[in-house]
Amino acid sequence: MEGLVKCSANYIPLSPISFLERSAVVYRDKISIVYGNTVKFTWKQTQERCLKLAYALTQLGISPGDVVAVLAPNVPAMVELHFGVPMAGAVLCTLNIRHDSAMISVLLQHSEAKVILVDYQFLEVALAALDIMSSKKTKTPLLVLIPESDNPYPEISKTNSCKYLEYENLIGTGRDDFKTKKPNDEWDPISLNYTSGTTSSPKGVVYHHRGAYLNSLAAILLNGIGPNPVYLWTVPMFHCNGWCLVWGVASQGGTNICLRNVSAQTIFDSIYMHRVTNMGGAPTVLNMIANAPPTVKKPLFSKVEVMSGAAPPPPQVLFKMEELGFGITHSYGLTETYGPATICTKPEWDSMQPHDRARLKSRQGVQHIAMEDVDIKDPVSMKSVPADAKTMGEVMFKGNTVMSGYLKNSKATEEAFQGGWFRTGDLGVKHPDGYIELKDRSKDIIISGGENISTIEVESVLFSHPLILEAAVVGRPDDHWGETPCAFVKLKEGKNTSTEEIMKFCRERLPHYMAPRTVVFDDMPKTSTGKTQKYILREKAKAMGSLTKKNNRSKL
Amino acid sequence: MEGLVKCSANYIPLSPISFLERSAVVYRDKISIVYGNTVKFTWKQTQERCLKLAYALTQLGISPGDVVAVLAPNVPAMVELHFGVPMAGAVLCTLNIRHDSAMISVLLQHSEAKVILVDYQFLEVALAALDIMSSKKTKTPLLVLIPESDNPYPEISKTNSCKYLEYENLIGTGRDDFKTKKPNDEWDPISLNYTSGTTSSPKGVVYHHRGAYLNSLAAILLNGIGPNPVYLWTVPMFHCNGWCLVWGVASQGGTNICLRNVSAQTIFDSIYMHRVTNMGGAPTVLNMIANAPPTVKKPLFSKVEVMSGAAPPPPQVLFKMEELGFGITHSYGLTETYGPATICTKPEWDSMQPHDRARLKSRQGVQHIAMEDVDIKDPVSMKSVPADAKTMGEVMFKGNTVMSGYLKNSKATEEAFQGGWFRTGDLGVKHPDGYIELKDRSKDIIISGGENISTIEVESVLFSHPLILEAAVVGRPDDHWGETPCAFVKLKEGKNTSTEEIMKFCRERLPHYMAPRTVVFDDMPKTSTGKTQKYILREKAKAMGSLTKKNNRSKL
Repeated sequence: MEGLVKCSANYIPLSPISFLERSAVVYRDKISIVYGNTVKFTWKQTQERCLKLAYALTQLGISPGDVVAVLAPNVPAMVELHFGVPMAGAVLCTLNIRHDSAMISVLLQHSEAKVILVDYQFLEVALAALDIMSSKKTKTPLLVLIPESDNPYPEISKTNSCKYLEYENLIGTGRDDFKTKKPNDEWDPISLNYTSGTTSSPKGVVYHHRGAYLNSLAAILLNGIGPNPVYLWTVPMFHCNGWCLVWGVASQGGTNICLRNVSAQTIFDSIYMHRVTNMGGAPTVLNMIANAPPTVKKPLFSKVEVMSGAAPPPPQVLFKMEELGFGITHSYGLTETYGPATICTKPEWDSMQPHDRARLKSRQGVQHIAMEDVDIKDPVSMKSVPADAKTMGEVMFKGNTVMSGYLKNSKATEEAFQGGWFRTGDLGVKHPDGYIELKDRSKDIIISGGENISTIEVESVLFSHPLILEAAVVGRPDDHWGETPCAFVKLKEGKNTSTEEIMKFCRERLPHYMAPRTVVFDDMPKTSTGKTQKYILREKAKAMGSLTKKNNRSKL
Repeated sequence: MEGLVKCSANYIPLSPISFLERSAVVYRDKISIVYGNTVKFTWKQTQERCLKLAYALTQLGISPGDVVAVLAPNVPAMVELHFGVPMAGAVLCTLNIRHDSAMISVLLQHSEAKVILVDYQFLEVALAALDIMSSKKTKTPLLVLIPESDNPYPEISKTNSCKYLEYENLIGTGRDDFKTKKPNDEWDPISLNYTSGTTSSPKGVVYHHRGAYLNSLAAILLNGIGPNPVYLWTVPMFHCNGWCLVWGVASQGGTNICLRNVSAQTIFDSIYMHRVTNMGGAPTVLNMIANAPPTVKKPLFSKVEVMSGAAPPPPQVLFKMEELGFGITHSYGLTETYGPATICTKPEWDSMQPHDRARLKSRQGVQHIAMEDVDIKDPVSMKSVPADAKTMGEVMFKGNTVMSGYLKNSKATEEAFQGGWFRTGDLGVKHPDGYIELKDRSKDIIISGGENISTIEVESVLFSHPLILEAAVVGRPDDHWGETPCAFVKLKEGKNTSTEEIMKFCRERLPHYMAPRTVVFDDMPKTSTGKTQKYILREKAKAMGSLTKKNNRSKL
């Protein structure tokens, strides 16, 4: 077709930076961020602070493409860095606050971060990480301290004060007439997220501006985040950039309720005080809410929509949450898919019985609006499995909200994208209605006497036990069967039962070979995002040794 | 950054075709289209029919990039063509059903359409257009007749039946295992929209898949189209592809209520019968609703959200609509911006007095979420005007939802994009809150005695007159003043007043020079989208001649 041109009037690289620029006009005097009792900003102020931050970063020598790291919980600076760093053309690397100094030093070296911003709570950890780097003669990043913004006089040891700048001072050196360095190519990186490492050493997942823009819109649509949202930050912003909602909330001019410590008390207090409309949570957070003591629970003014993620919520937890007045939407995704990639909801379910609905909702569902496709495929032939709810295959995605790749790891990138789809490593089935259901991580599945056992199915039965708070199942090595199911169980506070009773409970509800043969009462080791670290449990199970002795065949 | 790749796993050209593919899974058995008493499809069926249509089109010789035209009101085939044509890789050219045969022949020739699908109501017009083309030895497109799908036996003269295929027969030849021809480049054209020609001869505005995808999402967000929408088609789908909502409704798996004839009766009946949640409308449609007789009005079950567009709605009409229980969001845009480009809303306004709110809401507002920027600029210096609500300048846009250009008219494309912004030709001001307000089309503004008179401001006063239904103001040539304001007025049914009374009413509310000096009682000539055709009124005013005679200076 003749007569058409591509120019600055009709082509702009997609970037979530646009959301802030628009909100600073449309929602100018609306509250952007609330934190504690003293911190409150408007969208206009947030834009000004982000512009100053971006200017100040360039003055520190940050150039387009450089990495700026941050180690902080959900404080206001985290929101600002999600815009200020990309506005300087740089890449934001959000570090998990549960990491130790050794891991942080590894990630700082791998990412080549030029600056690291550190919340005062994590100063000692960060300084120790820099010491490790120095001892290895590695170039260390410049450290910027983020003091407690809700308390003007935090108790920080000043002994190390020569070693860092302070965040507010840095912003003070900035200029709000800074000209934002927007991406030249929407494929330019915007953030670097290290995987949480449940199964292997962390890999640096790179997001680009295009994907961040699209996943932000998808996230607000799948959460039903309408006009005037008030979003409570229970999901760590360091995890997949808060499932892309740090940008998403800005796109709707919403209010971010920042929270340093997530507990049943702070959740109910925040909902009550700020009229929260939306929040998110891994099953740990849902558990906190569902099992909160009556003294902590407060009635909801109106429905609070919760996006649950990270692991499939047990139907029992979904059910309890709905009783309390929360609306739960289950989403599934990985760091490699910018967080949420599927959504499990259907209009018809609203009129179903709560238990039936909860069962359907605990599946993983279908791709969200910005993800092109999800499928369950045979990982070798790449053929789709039949939609029979039985045949297992690998969950695979394709779409614009799949990562650019793993930083400095072409081999891992190639493996992940082999066959033109992103291979999740998760195993699942497809139901006749086209919805997918996760059965296991490919590394978690138990193979016992040649039969595949979905640990998720066994866990689902354990969760339905009235005394069990948390449960995880792994394979225990077995000389005869290869593996047998081993359950780690945490009971509700003050409750008691026996391993025999739990095994019996499972046998009544599962095929015999799937029921746990070992039950251990213990706390769950967790990642910062609430995922149970099964590799630790697997090591414990391995240490137990085989249940059946060689040549001493027991009946399963 | 090393280790990253762009491949089919993580890069897919954006296209609204994806919305249909997703809805066919997620909303499989939900109703996609309702029309009359007999037509009802599910999203799965709609996908199957669109696949068959795409296959059948390729069998007719349609190749990627070819143009397929359609001349039809808001019948189900229009929804299907918005997907089926792009799925064949082709470009959909929607023709205005108010055009005459001569104009249609011009547009068919200009667009080089290979096929034209024609609703039975417009068969004679289309056949006449093809005859004109044949007489000029121009290659004519293949004609496909769309019979009345709500009535299996429409009364169509069969004399011409040898000259066309029938739509349902065509679909019958299709295959639903057709492999959709998705765009290789998201910049590939998806549709061709001829401008409505209020000021000049029609120009062919080209949209691409990327812009259509983004504007669809913006349109559902700005309309607050949540889950399970029921959308009533009062906006012609041939106009900017129904403001991109043909695709937008599919993205949310909504139900399209198709409507051949738009009237107060059919609107209220449809809202009542189908529980409509969203609709759109030019001021004519709002007027129909606001002034419907009591026998036609039906109570609303719940709020119906209406996006008003095409021309600024007078505050009085907004006010009446709100009283009836409709929520009105005013949006402004042009064919060149895929329809809606701005939105005028603000959370704080909800608590205002209705009259104050209506006044603020009748402005044009701010860019929507997918439009990068809107500004009011001096068209020569390209400097932004001050946000003083007074200084006039030209409304300009930049963003991904600005057209690719005018088909086969590089000169017009270049002029429109001169300076790196899309120049709308509309004049406006910027308010201190950053919101823009339209003052006039640059061709509509009246210059009287050297003073600029915004015809919109004068019309707004006329609309506030209790007896006036519709009003339009143009310049009447004047030997002394250059021009004087001339009002064309249509009174409400059965009402009567004098020109003197109206002039007096205006003088009490406007500076003397702005008040109409001529008042004509007449019907309004309209484009099919409800825009008053001012060029026709201007011709009438011109024919009246000068009010003041040369050397006979009257006092204004």
